[in-house]
Amino acid sequence: MPQISQKGKSMPASPIRKLVPYADIAKAKGRTVYHLNIGQPDILSPQAALDAIHNFPNKIIEYGHSAGNLSYRKGLEKYYNDLGMNITYNDILVTTGGSEALILSLTVCLNSGDEVIIPEPFYTNYNAFVEQAGVKIVPVPTSIETGFALPPISEFERRITPRTRAILLCNPNNPTGYIYSKEELESLREIVLRHDLFLICDEVYRVFCYTGEKYHSCMDLEGLEDNVIIVDSTSKRYSMCGIRVGAIITRNKEVSAAMLHFCQSRLCAPAIGQVAAEAALSASDTYFEEIRREYMSRRDCLIEGMNSIDGVLCPSPAGAFYTIARLPVDNAETFAAWMLSEFEYKRQTVMVAPAAGFYKTENMGVDEVRIAYVLKKEHLRNAVECIKHAIDEYNSISG
Amino acid sequence: MPQISQKGKSMPASPIRKLVPYADIAKAKGRTVYHLNIGQPDILSPQAALDAIHNFPNKIIEYGHSAGNLSYRKGLEKYYNDLGMNITYNDILVTTGGSEALILSLTVCLNSGDEVIIPEPFYTNYNAFVEQAGVKIVPVPTSIETGFALPPISEFERRITPRTRAILLCNPNNPTGYIYSKEELESLREIVLRHDLFLICDEVYRVFCYTGEKYHSCMDLEGLEDNVIIVDSTSKRYSMCGIRVGAIITRNKEVSAAMLHFCQSRLCAPAIGQVAAEAALSASDTYFEEIRREYMSRRDCLIEGMNSIDGVLCPSPAGAFYTIARLPVDNAETFAAWMLSEFEYKRQTVMVAPAAGFYKTENMGVDEVRIAYVLKKEHLRNAVECIKHAIDEYNSISG
Repeated sequence: MPQISQKGKSMPASPIRKLVPYADIAKAKGRTVYHLNIGQPDILSPQAALDAIHNFPNKIIEYGHSAGNLSYRKGLEKYYNDLGMNITYNDILVTTGGSEALILSLTVCLNSGDEVIIPEPFYTNYNAFVEQAGVKIVPVPTSIETGFALPPISEFERRITPRTRAILLCNPNNPTGYIYSKEELESLREIVLRHDLFLICDEVYRVFCYTGEKYHSCMDLEGLEDNVIIVDSTSKRYSMCGIRVGAIITRNKEVSAAMLHFCQSRLCAPAIGQVAAEAALSASDTYFEEIRREYMSRRDCLIEGMNSIDGVLCPSPAGAFYTIARLPVDNAETFAAWMLSEFEYKRQTVMVAPAAGFYKTENMGVDEVRIAYVLKKEHLRNAVECIKHAIDEYNSISG
Repeated sequence: MPQISQKGKSMPASPIRKLVPYADIAKAKGRTVYHLNIGQPDILSPQAALDAIHNFPNKIIEYGHSAGNLSYRKGLEKYYNDLGMNITYNDILVTTGGSEALILSLTVCLNSGDEVIIPEPFYTNYNAFVEQAGVKIVPVPTSIETGFALPPISEFERRITPRTRAILLCNPNNPTGYIYSKEELESLREIVLRHDLFLICDEVYRVFCYTGEKYHSCMDLEGLEDNVIIVDSTSKRYSMCGIRVGAIITRNKEVSAAMLHFCQSRLCAPAIGQVAAEAALSASDTYFEEIRREYMSRRDCLIEGMNSIDGVLCPSPAGAFYTIARLPVDNAETFAAWMLSEFEYKRQTVMVAPAAGFYKTENMGVDEVRIAYVLKKEHLRNAVECIKHAIDEYNSISG
């Protein structure tokens, strides 16, 4: 029997997926499970996008342009320029979700074995993308104590080696909900220039900012025209996770030319998804304001509830729809599995994502969980009540 | 300015794309260009698939299962078992087109730097997929003289090194249209077993067989349960190239588990495309019989026309909708560019794909072109007439 590759062997199983069998137990026992573990929003997709799908006019679903449909790229040009990016559609490549955008960025910017510095905790799937690109993550720890602020720039500097080729930032951050300040980005700018690095910025949660202040994109950093690569996606912005349409924006012509060659080899991004994404561009400010209002109110409900539990630390996130909470338990993974398989409160229980899987460094985040606040407030309140009772019961058993 | 990766630098430009500026010249001069260079069929997508898109019922386009929608995988199980494969839906992963299926297969089966043996000429985009997976192609030449039959097995054997991990076959073949016989596949079986290799078989043209004989899939080979990986796609079968829905079929549990991890990291294949693909499974035998009849009649029209030109050798392909033709010109790439930029016949000209780009070995295929017969017969006849006149004129100038 032939052996699979090292990449195939070392692909980590997601910490959330390890819990799926336990969630099945909870469901088999007839319990209501509140899913705080996933980022699938319950917001409706824009009607204009659904209409565009229902009215898809062609009789043959043909290949599109490998860089993306021209009309969609021109629509994106306007969209990003309205955000102040000052780019043209030639700086945009439409990808199969943010996932492909990240894989392509890592593949084109880093050689096999090169290193990318990423603040941790980070989106677990970055582990898979670096594996696929054959490169290595060097984590820079951030701390729940400081609300996951960017660590001092010296922490980046001391991790730079001859193999360091890029810094990867997720802003607003999944899983922490942190939004990087202008000052933090300016300090990154300095280090990027000094060491001639790429700065890959995953901005898929950009529209989910709750501070009321101006969002600072890495694209706005002066003098980094050849260094910055923005990764974007329509999944969360328009609650259309299934269409698999993302984008790469970069002014570096060498990078975009090489990426285009890879895009040509896979022919095109999904045709129907692009039609939906283009139609979604017409979504009004009101659409987003309502969504932001809804998420802010969910966030406040969740954070207040969590912090009212004895021993819980749960910083209020400025963006995205996740937060990391530190729980007064010995091991969040064991606790999460126990909540699903053993615990119930009024025939309900909760599924959370153990945060250790979002850290690269061993033994970090063992008492933390990631919580997505994509449920209605009523459900969030029930879920928090469950967690409160679960912590008491778990500690009374194991303690 | 940071340097891009070696992978980014060495991504080959497609030989067809180099001709695009010349095609633009032809169009600017007001000439009709017959596109024999591309595999975009003019067959209508199945009405059931279009209906499914128009009736997409959900208000939120959510993530689907990372292995593919369960109902679609069960539909595929029946589809493949009707072909005699004897598999379950657990042996199937739905992918973002055949492209992702190939990248995943190479990534999971081969380590960085490992070698995959591929009969040449081969589909040019394999070059990009191996680049992305960080592996190497070792070509085994086949010849237009023998209609691109599989070379003696000794030709494979002498190319096997300690780094050889897989053989990749495209059957029916793009670009040659060749269909491998049971005997040829049996001899491959032997070598795969002897050297404990993976056998990756790209069967995306499976439905396009014109011999009237039984098609032999690598999946039918006995004793290769753990070696064979089938790559499939809905693009050509249902003339839905834009939906980006393909599949991997393998009975090797270790391979499919590792692939599933990669699939989980990119979340899911396109949702709307999967709905279309599932609906397309209802396409009747009559739908395919009509398509096959149409392509056979186009093929016969093209091959007869091409072989009637002095000095042209153009084997009749048994499957797919491509053929390789040897032309009596010094350099097919120069000739193809010249046809577009300089030549016209009754205000018409032709775009073909120079075949050198389908070979890995230097200086092979320089007087060959790949022709796709995806146009109506009337257009194919006009195109052949153009080529005939072009060859005369080109040789009278350059000779």
